[in-house]
Amino acid sequence: MGVRDIDPAALGERGAYRLLTSLVVPRPIAWISTLASDGTRNLAPHSYFNVISGDPPVVHFTSSGTKDTLRNVRASGEFVVNVVSRDLVEAMNLTAANFPPGEDEFAWAGLEPAPSKLVAPPRVARARAALECRVHSEITIGDGTMVFGAVVSFAVAGELLDEGAADPPRLDAVGRLGGTGYAGTREVFHLDRPAWDDVRGRD
Amino acid sequence: MGVRDIDPAALGERGAYRLLTSLVVPRPIAWISTLASDGTRNLAPHSYFNVISGDPPVVHFTSSGTKDTLRNVRASGEFVVNVVSRDLVEAMNLTAANFPPGEDEFAWAGLEPAPSKLVAPPRVARARAALECRVHSEITIGDGTMVFGAVVSFAVAGELLDEGAADPPRLDAVGRLGGTGYAGTREVFHLDRPAWDDVRGRD
Repeated sequence: MGVRDIDPAALGERGAYRLLTSLVVPRPIAWISTLASDGTRNLAPHSYFNVISGDPPVVHFTSSGTKDTLRNVRASGEFVVNVVSRDLVEAMNLTAANFPPGEDEFAWAGLEPAPSKLVAPPRVARARAALECRVHSEITIGDGTMVFGAVVSFAVAGELLDEGAADPPRLDAVGRLGGTGYAGTREVFHLDRPAWDDVRGRD
Repeated sequence: MGVRDIDPAALGERGAYRLLTSLVVPRPIAWISTLASDGTRNLAPHSYFNVISGDPPVVHFTSSGTKDTLRNVRASGEFVVNVVSRDLVEAMNLTAANFPPGEDEFAWAGLEPAPSKLVAPPRVARARAALECRVHSEITIGDGTMVFGAVVSFAVAGELLDEGAADPPRLDAVGRLGGTGYAGTREVFHLDRPAWDDVRGRD
């Protein structure tokens, strides 16, 4: 394989972003609902998103620059992560447009809000699962501001669960690739993690 | 849809982790190579991994507890993220076993190391892409320690690139689901991000 070494500094302003986001894939999508201080609902997808702690459950997302989501999260200390399943992908993509502040993405995308249990921002009623979060802290590195959120309540469609976990085909989540690309999760396979004794025993 | 509200505190020690990791999907996999201070190679997969900054390029991964990767990264300040394509998934899974310190996962998994350009840890020679990283900082929240790394050099198979980005079918990356689940990225679709004027114009 002819491997090329690429200096990030030589890639230019958008080049490093473009290459990096095509290599760190597939990224989970946090479709984040927040409330502005005047009560306006906001909904936007973020794919710099993951878990940092399982017990207690803490997630994080990163905002590139100061967009509505970050402004609202700073003002209110709360956000909801909605999971994007395949049937919601067109609505999610519509909410990725550069809406001016004051516009309600729920309304523009024809999405019904549903009340959350412990936080003020609503969840997307059609989302099969949502994580209600309270802001823990934030950190800025380079062009990204990462917000950590403690998960204070899970909202999960009952038919999703199999022994306490979401069943992948029933969740039907979508991941983010580089550029305009997305990947589904219908192509699932399973691998048991080996124990060291199994590995050693093979020799 | 019958939605169930679940209190994380009621889920028990492994329950919150189990539910959370089944919902934050698909997660990208950082197959991380490091060097111990005695020169022993280490290689292990981490799926709490993502981008925080595009320009300059900065990535992060999270270690749950202090494992070899975290110990090595703290001692040396360097790590390499290898991308896991479908043909490497069995080897990657073998390196997820609970190896004792001092064991070389490259050797056990039958993987050839290849020298990196700017950092000491080698990359996986068969990986189609790798990110050479220098540690920026770390932060601990809950049971996770997140390490931020500045990407100082990209190693990319030349045939992967299409206008400066990795082509998804040629990269053939694998993502992590909950439990023992994985998802491929062969099922790709594209959605153009709409502009606000397009959204407004639809009304």
